[in-house]
Amino acid sequence: MLRISEYSALAEAKIRALDFPKDKLSGLYAPIAYGMQAGGKRLRPTLLLMAADAFGNCREKAIMPAVGIEMFHNFTLLHDDVMDNSDLRRGRPTVHSKWDENTAILSGDTMLTLATKYISEVDDAILRPVLDTFNDQALRVYEGQRLDMDFETKEEVALDEYIDMIKAKTGALLGAAAKIGALIGGASKEDAEKMYEFGIMLGVAFQIEDDYLDTFGNAETFGKPIGGDINNNKKTFLMVKALANGGSNAEALKAALKMTAGPTKVKTVTRIYEAMGMPAISKAEVANYSSKALAAIKKTSLSDECKDAFRKLIDKLITRNK
Amino acid sequence: MLRISEYSALAEAKIRALDFPKDKLSGLYAPIAYGMQAGGKRLRPTLLLMAADAFGNCREKAIMPAVGIEMFHNFTLLHDDVMDNSDLRRGRPTVHSKWDENTAILSGDTMLTLATKYISEVDDAILRPVLDTFNDQALRVYEGQRLDMDFETKEEVALDEYIDMIKAKTGALLGAAAKIGALIGGASKEDAEKMYEFGIMLGVAFQIEDDYLDTFGNAETFGKPIGGDINNNKKTFLMVKALANGGSNAEALKAALKMTAGPTKVKTVTRIYEAMGMPAISKAEVANYSSKALAAIKKTSLSDECKDAFRKLIDKLITRNK
Repeated sequence: MLRISEYSALAEAKIRALDFPKDKLSGLYAPIAYGMQAGGKRLRPTLLLMAADAFGNCREKAIMPAVGIEMFHNFTLLHDDVMDNSDLRRGRPTVHSKWDENTAILSGDTMLTLATKYISEVDDAILRPVLDTFNDQALRVYEGQRLDMDFETKEEVALDEYIDMIKAKTGALLGAAAKIGALIGGASKEDAEKMYEFGIMLGVAFQIEDDYLDTFGNAETFGKPIGGDINNNKKTFLMVKALANGGSNAEALKAALKMTAGPTKVKTVTRIYEAMGMPAISKAEVANYSSKALAAIKKTSLSDECKDAFRKLIDKLITRNK
Repeated sequence: MLRISEYSALAEAKIRALDFPKDKLSGLYAPIAYGMQAGGKRLRPTLLLMAADAFGNCREKAIMPAVGIEMFHNFTLLHDDVMDNSDLRRGRPTVHSKWDENTAILSGDTMLTLATKYISEVDDAILRPVLDTFNDQALRVYEGQRLDMDFETKEEVALDEYIDMIKAKTGALLGAAAKIGALIGGASKEDAEKMYEFGIMLGVAFQIEDDYLDTFGNAETFGKPIGGDINNNKKTFLMVKALANGGSNAEALKAALKMTAGPTKVKTVTRIYEAMGMPAISKAEVANYSSKALAAIKKTSLSDECKDAFRKLIDKLITRNK
């Protein structure tokens, strides 16, 4: 197998080489090219390519489905940015602020169909399971997004509700990437399911780490201002877990959530989290889900070398600073 | 073959019987059920079922793809209503006005994936051509919608640009419905292409008739206020063709388009159209594209009885009042 950075470079190169209609249809396709060229970790196509190589040494055959998984991810970002009214992503104007909201909606729709097309570029023999995996996990992503939106107006969110939400919103697509890559590589049904489980657990670990970085990360390396979740009273792992723990600190947290957004609020809430030991609790939960991800990999029939490649991917994601 | 009304009744019954997740996911699925139960002509699933029966007497096998085509159509309506900021459709509040814009975006996305799932409920042997047809025509629909949006800010639109736009925005999905139905019925590649051509031409005739009804129809039977296109300065067949004809009436039309929206503007523009003979010109163009649709059907290997069923469908659509 190649190194992780080599897989992401393969995906990046193919994405940069995508050729969209220009001229009179540029109003539809230029925003798609823009959205796709925002860079980022390319985690989902990397995972898909790794799985294809691990099971069948066939990253070339997996490249368009890998691009498709990233196209789907970027479609969700385009529409999420409209829904959240976010003006910036990775330091650049979002599509709806660079163009307009209608463009973001319509070009986003187009990306979903393009994603389905790219995902379908597999051998006929596996088209059905690949397509079913993609569609079913796409539904899980929307369901997760809906739950996340519903959480905004919910007074209390239980920890297991939160975990279920991120399994759907973040885990499902990583699960789909790992499973589709495995199917392309010729994995058995059992191995493909283990890879799906791996992706789900990796997604949960990834999201809890993301929640942690939004409060305790470094603004420069994280790429966005620290404390955004706190200012938006977002139901993150930190908040849900802290409120579930109860006690005087949880009461203080409830009071702090009523403060006006700004640096003082961020500082106050951060100190309460620290007093409650949330950084360590958060890290322990990331480690917990990383272990579950690793356990799924260990149950596959892959060689030790391949298993180790996925272990490295887990390590890379949970020790990241962006 | 059954009667046209029996095919649309079959589609309607299956749509009414769709069972969506309730409880905590009702925020995602209730708007979908609402959007799907708005009624309407069910033209696209009717066409798909007719084609499946004509070629293979297998409407039962075609029912879920038929629902999928209607689900896709309704997804575009949900997002179009957000983009147009329309509060009413078929006399009921639109999804984004009954719920909110974010709900319409996210539930619309979900409908696109559900549509793809339903369309894929075909035999493995034809999954690839059915899926490709659906995805390619979906892209054409978005391209048509983009062109239509671009027309809003264009001073002049040529007649062939307008026809190309409606071939994409309206024709492509009818083409997909006819072709997918034919494929499910076991049609040859040649016959499937003829059915696609039939759908495209039927779509153009249908849209020009729709443009005509928006100005010259009866408000009660048409189901929406007459003159909406005039008040919105929409680039319809009537406007594009009238401006292309030139002369003093075209100059008068240009002046009238600058009037404030309201009954006086509608009356003024309507009278100019009448003075230019636009009702007859419009009817002649509908007849022209209906002939092209019928010519495509005649080139298929279908029996005379089946050909006649599609001729009746054309007649029904171009003599409608809603």
